[in-house]
Amino acid sequence: MTDFLKDIKQIRFEGPQSDNPFAFRHYDADEMVMGKPLSDHLRFAAAYWHSFAWEGGDPFGGPTFERPWYPQTSMESAKLKADAAFELFEILGVPYFCWHDLDVRPEGASFAESRDRLFEWVDYVLPKMEKTGTRCLWGTANMFTHRRWMAGAATNPDPDVFAYAAATVKSCIDATVRLGGENYVLWGGREGYETLLNTDMGRERQQAGRFLQMVVNYARKTGFKGAILIEPKPQEPSKHQYDYDVATVYGFLKEFDLETEVKVNIEQGHAILAGHSFEHELHLARCLGILGSIDMNRNDYQSGWDTDQFPNNVPEVALAYYEVLKAGGFTTGGTNFDAKLRRQSLDAEDLVLAHIGGMDTCAAGLKAAARMLEDGALEGALQARYAGWETPAAQAMLTGDLEAAAARVEAEGLAPEPRSGRQERLEALVNRYVG
Amino acid sequence: MTDFLKDIKQIRFEGPQSDNPFAFRHYDADEMVMGKPLSDHLRFAAAYWHSFAWEGGDPFGGPTFERPWYPQTSMESAKLKADAAFELFEILGVPYFCWHDLDVRPEGASFAESRDRLFEWVDYVLPKMEKTGTRCLWGTANMFTHRRWMAGAATNPDPDVFAYAAATVKSCIDATVRLGGENYVLWGGREGYETLLNTDMGRERQQAGRFLQMVVNYARKTGFKGAILIEPKPQEPSKHQYDYDVATVYGFLKEFDLETEVKVNIEQGHAILAGHSFEHELHLARCLGILGSIDMNRNDYQSGWDTDQFPNNVPEVALAYYEVLKAGGFTTGGTNFDAKLRRQSLDAEDLVLAHIGGMDTCAAGLKAAARMLEDGALEGALQARYAGWETPAAQAMLTGDLEAAAARVEAEGLAPEPRSGRQERLEALVNRYVG
Amino acid sequence: MTDFLKDIKQIRFEGPQSDNPFAFRHYDADEMVMGKPLSDHLRFAAAYWHSFAWEGGDPFGGPTFERPWYPQTSMESAKLKADAAFELFEILGVPYFCWHDLDVRPEGASFAESRDRLFEWVDYVLPKMEKTGTRCLWGTANMFTHRRWMAGAATNPDPDVFAYAAATVKSCIDATVRLGGENYVLWGGREGYETLLNTDMGRERQQAGRFLQMVVNYARKTGFKGAILIEPKPQEPSKHQYDYDVATVYGFLKEFDLETEVKVNIEQGHAILAGHSFEHELHLARCLGILGSIDMNRNDYQSGWDTDQFPNNVPEVALAYYEVLKAGGFTTGGTNFDAKLRRQSLDAEDLVLAHIGGMDTCAAGLKAAARMLEDGALEGALQARYAGWETPAAQAMLTGDLEAAAARVEAEGLAPEPRSGRQERLEALVNRYVG
Amino acid sequence: MTDFLKDIKQIRFEGPQSDNPFAFRHYDADEMVMGKPLSDHLRFAAAYWHSFAWEGGDPFGGPTFERPWYPQTSMESAKLKADAAFELFEILGVPYFCWHDLDVRPEGASFAESRDRLFEWVDYVLPKMEKTGTRCLWGTANMFTHRRWMAGAATNPDPDVFAYAAATVKSCIDATVRLGGENYVLWGGREGYETLLNTDMGRERQQAGRFLQMVVNYARKTGFKGAILIEPKPQEPSKHQYDYDVATVYGFLKEFDLETEVKVNIEQGHAILAGHSFEHELHLARCLGILGSIDMNRNDYQSGWDTDQFPNNVPEVALAYYEVLKAGGFTTGGTNFDAKLRRQSLDAEDLVLAHIGGMDTCAAGLKAAARMLEDGALEGALQARYAGWETPAAQAMLTGDLEAAAARVEAEGLAPEPRSGRQERLEALVNRYVG
Repeated sequence: MTDFLKDIKQIRFEGPQSDNPFAFRHYDADEMVMGKPLSDHLRFAAAYWHSFAWEGGDPFGGPTFERPWYPQTSMESAKLKADAAFELFEILGVPYFCWHDLDVRPEGASFAESRDRLFEWVDYVLPKMEKTGTRCLWGTANMFTHRRWMAGAATNPDPDVFAYAAATVKSCIDATVRLGGENYVLWGGREGYETLLNTDMGRERQQAGRFLQMVVNYARKTGFKGAILIEPKPQEPSKHQYDYDVATVYGFLKEFDLETEVKVNIEQGHAILAGHSFEHELHLARCLGILGSIDMNRNDYQSGWDTDQFPNNVPEVALAYYEVLKAGGFTTGGTNFDAKLRRQSLDAEDLVLAHIGGMDTCAAGLKAAARMLEDGALEGALQARYAGWETPAAQAMLTGDLEAAAARVEAEGLAPEPRSGRQERLEALVNRYVG
Repeated sequence: MTDFLKDIKQIRFEGPQSDNPFAFRHYDADEMVMGKPLSDHLRFAAAYWHSFAWEGGDPFGGPTFERPWYPQTSMESAKLKADAAFELFEILGVPYFCWHDLDVRPEGASFAESRDRLFEWVDYVLPKMEKTGTRCLWGTANMFTHRRWMAGAATNPDPDVFAYAAATVKSCIDATVRLGGENYVLWGGREGYETLLNTDMGRERQQAGRFLQMVVNYARKTGFKGAILIEPKPQEPSKHQYDYDVATVYGFLKEFDLETEVKVNIEQGHAILAGHSFEHELHLARCLGILGSIDMNRNDYQSGWDTDQFPNNVPEVALAYYEVLKAGGFTTGGTNFDAKLRRQSLDAEDLVLAHIGGMDTCAAGLKAAARMLEDGALEGALQARYAGWETPAAQAMLTGDLEAAAARVEAEGLAPEPRSGRQERLEALVNRYVG
Repeated sequence: MTDFLKDIKQIRFEGPQSDNPFAFRHYDADEMVMGKPLSDHLRFAAAYWHSFAWEGGDPFGGPTFERPWYPQTSMESAKLKADAAFELFEILGVPYFCWHDLDVRPEGASFAESRDRLFEWVDYVLPKMEKTGTRCLWGTANMFTHRRWMAGAATNPDPDVFAYAAATVKSCIDATVRLGGENYVLWGGREGYETLLNTDMGRERQQAGRFLQMVVNYARKTGFKGAILIEPKPQEPSKHQYDYDVATVYGFLKEFDLETEVKVNIEQGHAILAGHSFEHELHLARCLGILGSIDMNRNDYQSGWDTDQFPNNVPEVALAYYEVLKAGGFTTGGTNFDAKLRRQSLDAEDLVLAHIGGMDTCAAGLKAAARMLEDGALEGALQARYAGWETPAAQAMLTGDLEAAAARVEAEGLAPEPRSGRQERLEALVNRYVG
Repeated sequence: MTDFLKDIKQIRFEGPQSDNPFAFRHYDADEMVMGKPLSDHLRFAAAYWHSFAWEGGDPFGGPTFERPWYPQTSMESAKLKADAAFELFEILGVPYFCWHDLDVRPEGASFAESRDRLFEWVDYVLPKMEKTGTRCLWGTANMFTHRRWMAGAATNPDPDVFAYAAATVKSCIDATVRLGGENYVLWGGREGYETLLNTDMGRERQQAGRFLQMVVNYARKTGFKGAILIEPKPQEPSKHQYDYDVATVYGFLKEFDLETEVKVNIEQGHAILAGHSFEHELHLARCLGILGSIDMNRNDYQSGWDTDQFPNNVPEVALAYYEVLKAGGFTTGGTNFDAKLRRQSLDAEDLVLAHIGGMDTCAAGLKAAARMLEDGALEGALQARYAGWETPAAQAMLTGDLEAAAARVEAEGLAPEPRSGRQERLEALVNRYVG
């Protein structure tokens, strides 16, 4: 046991009336909801990066945290960090974790050393995974922190950087496979531009498309059975990022014939920055058949950058899980907390409490969503609204031509009368379940 | 001659030194730029709606304008409006105009009467077009003002509204063809949602896709040779509109196999609302091969809704036309002023001066863009930045697999060194042309 | 009884388990909370304008509603509207209503006729108020809809408009007094600018300041005992409005020595448009001693304009009422629903259900806030955080000079160690009460 | 001479036709504009922090720059940095520079050592200032980077941090005085909050107000004759910063009787983040009599955080300087470039070119503003718009009461007719000068 969490015991479910901050009030992993345990619905994953690699800095300030594994410059510190991480996973009872290569080990002096260190970390944590039962939800490559990536990875104007990105992703896929990871994620942190004046988007798009095809091919060649996921984000760090939102990613996948191979990992904060609600992005991905996994955090609605806060608003979270449930629930995906402590939350306790609060918010949200779906009132209202389309005549119109549809207007003297959209009634209905 | 513009004479080019507000300082229609007259580059169009149909209201206030053709409730007023409109077109020397059906005639008591009135207007203006030489850049259907459209046109939950939309677009295409229109535009003002609680986006997307296929088929059947254009907008009036931005429209076109049939009409204000610069949207559409036409206005950067102001910032406009020129210039498309007077700009003079200012801003911008392109410094810097990709080895990497690309890293000991993106140098370079 | 609400019965409290949409689940007017009835805490008011005067239009569409009192052009229609309004007030059991002059009667052909019609309406509703027990929370003048106000009321460049504004406010204060109104509100809908190019903010600020002094003096002269309230809003309809937010209004009041005479009426949607949370504006007004009343609605976080939706998120509303309770609760102020139906919510039922949902959200929020305050855990944590300031040495520092404070650093070798801000712990704590 | 800028020669004015990127095209320091040299109008200052202390990191990436004075951990590196800085100042011919304590020397092990190092730097640069003629526009204290400031400086919940802030500001004022600084600036980087749940704004406001009074008293006691300036910013790094914008700062100064002692240093990027245009903030500060100095940069309109880019849009900058000129020009203030290279702009050349481009943009903007003001057309239109207020009757209304103003309406049968605001005409007028 490291010193980091030494005073904190296993977190247990105590029910809604508990006032013990170190207990779950809503998350009972074994509670059966719509026929399966809550833990199987939520598939929680902790994020290695924010919780263990981030030191509390922001654009105007340096590190605020003090952790036993700082400075994060040696494999010894990386192993101490892994020890603490798995202790947290176990204390929380999260079934999964997620990682970038840079989170788990410092870069080496050469690519080969960096890769070897990654595999050394894999060897180090495999027994821990075995012992604790914690699994890998996904792995990914950090291709945005080091200065070599400053102008992009796959979309870099320098083909050597493209090669370096290929080598990096290959090693991360290899590590993910060895860890039994259920997904592999690509977030294009620097795949975008700072100024159009030095950018050829057409060329960079072709590079990105071809890169993704190569990644898919390689992953399948290794026998990787999990999902390959793109994580949309509209901007930050770049002024504009190519994987702007779900709709943008879909067009990109279609262009490169990848829409059946690649899905999306959707983050609340990224949705907000793109001008969408979280449930919008989930709903759209569901309709397009590309909903893969989620990063559950929240953005401060008054901040124009990615704040990555732990979720705390049950009604909002309920609407998100409602989409997940309508999609049939997660298969390989899950709920990753891409959420970080505020930089003033210095204590180890804060890290634990933030996860408890987030997990409870998600559990309460998912259960509310399940009640909504089971009761069927919302779905019933939805179907009633579109019921007119279920007639053969209406369906026929969709397979006919414009003239035929137009002809009906005069033939039948159509003057369609609008019907109430009933928004406030439906909002009040939702509040029956989330309150 | 109507009374409306009676004191205003034909606007002429007087050169940059002129201090006559009723003269062009930059727009000399016949000035040769990159081998063709400025008027052929810009292909200016005036918008019937903002300039003749909008009465100065906003969400908190009623009409402020007083025009001879108010109230706009009869075909007589529609004809008086047409008289005034063609007088403006002629005074300004704009070669084109654009219209919605509702701009040019009041709705009738039935669909048939509405359509007949539209054709009556066509008959009324054809001689005017002949006489003044003003042509139709595009026509479109207003499927957002009347309450029947409140929940969408093609995406309405009521199939009768879909039919009504089909009949409406059919009549507008017919009118466009009769007027010799060079494009037909679809702006999905109510194709979106107010709340996801009552919305099935998958279903509505299928309706929209099928509708667009029907429109394309019909237009081609009539022999229409122009372009069919979608105008992206992210929101307003809807909370979310389906044709969010260029990238979103591209994915939609790909899904319905329409990406070679349909292009986009891009508006500055809509780009801004979607979180993009105007030049971003143009650049992306150029790269995707779907750049059709532009709506030239500007959005107030401090306002969260579509302000549709006349353009006045030459450096910004120059970057937009730079993309148009790089795309080879307009073919069927042009520069439509989807721009409206501020509601305090009550006088007929204001309407004329707003167009003069806008046209001059565009002319100055296009000429700056042409100088940039002809001088080649910006393009040269761009090509130099990507020059590494021109080697056979780099090109081969794009057709190879991930392993081969990765192997180079170790074989060659790659440790790519970043190179300056030179943004500030390029920004200063641009200022050489726009100042 | 009008036909409008004829099928709808008095709304009653049925408790959280009720699935009757026409019942309150949380709002039991007589429930005792912190020593007084819930109705005395919330002091609900219905808004005449959105609920009875607004016809469902938006910037891209015309009216969608059809009400028995349309067109709103005669005193007969005004009286029918009043009949329906008081029926709604009674059905809902709201103790208060709020109004603009233009909501309640059409303008006349002259100022005098407009004023007389206003008083005619007063005479018409006084017996209804008596009969139903509904009181007037506040009145206000609509000085933004008519074109005379397009460039401002008190801040207009035309002194005749200033005079017209003076006469208008005078008549509205007179009407408010006659109705026993508990507050008088000023919202500066056109007190702002569209472009700085034609604006002298210094001059307009002096006009506004002097106008407000005159208003206060007149109100006090009439014996009006209620509060005079400014309603901050940052923009819309103007590009920039002078009463931007609470902090801005405070500076304005200080400049004109009105900070003890005038308070603020804070709206959630306006707070959001100004870049603040609702609770921020409330907290600041509380600290500055100028918290008067609230307009309870919500803004769509994805829309850049004022959406004025009925509140539906209990956790958010709880944080707002927490500030109200910390301020000691409302005195003359209350909870006005400056919230409107979505324009697709056509039916009378929608209007009733929207209010029920909003009232229930507020009731649940207020009760959660009361629990938070009574339990004291949040306040306790707050006081603990600042406890260091309670020492005499710390207090003395605030009355000393910079040198003395600085001297302590070296004398005592100060090297202050930061302490956790505990944000996530506190967020989880809040969730104990709002869930 | 350091190696850093060794290949770059003194930048000279070559005129608009020059295509030498290392020359000024618009900035001729000695050009006489409105009776004084351009350099006296603009009073350019280079910022030590972005240009010499910032290493190119962002929230998602580490340093990208490589400078001879890295790592910035010793006084030797601080001196090498000072050498390079003064070389840049001289090459550019900027008359001023600005600094934070943390920019110019690393912190020591104790407060005393930190202060001594600051004074050591003062001793080191005084001869350089003498030799090059570069003066100090302002100094300021960095009270946001070190973790001790994470919860604020003057507004910290820990009184020891308040004391540390007092000592820090005292030493920075002392250094500013020794350097002959013409202003002292306070930017409240952490004076704000992350969450209201742990914040008492009333208490923190009192701390901030008292602190500022102590600062003013101390500065005056030292004989400091310059201006004391607050720099408004709405958010970032904090979720909410207390010095939100000019209007907010004004209210704060009024509350603490400091409005004649303290002025504002206004930054374009901060104005944009607060929802204002730059010229709005300048115009308001001018009207309130608190316009002190400016930080000239620009924000990316598509980014929600402070991008601090070098200015490049002449029309925008012209409107800003128009306000400065209307205020009578700078007295102690000047034009500081709080602007930084993009992190991909790695080369020393980029740093020089960015300043050249920025200075040229400002010079062109100021000259355009001077032409506008000298020609008088814009001012004339403004005065004409308000001319009605110049009559004795109108002025009398402002000193009378509401009843008297109201009485005029009926007595004179007022029905004021709106007049055109002429926005588009004025925008076109501005374009005559900025093109």
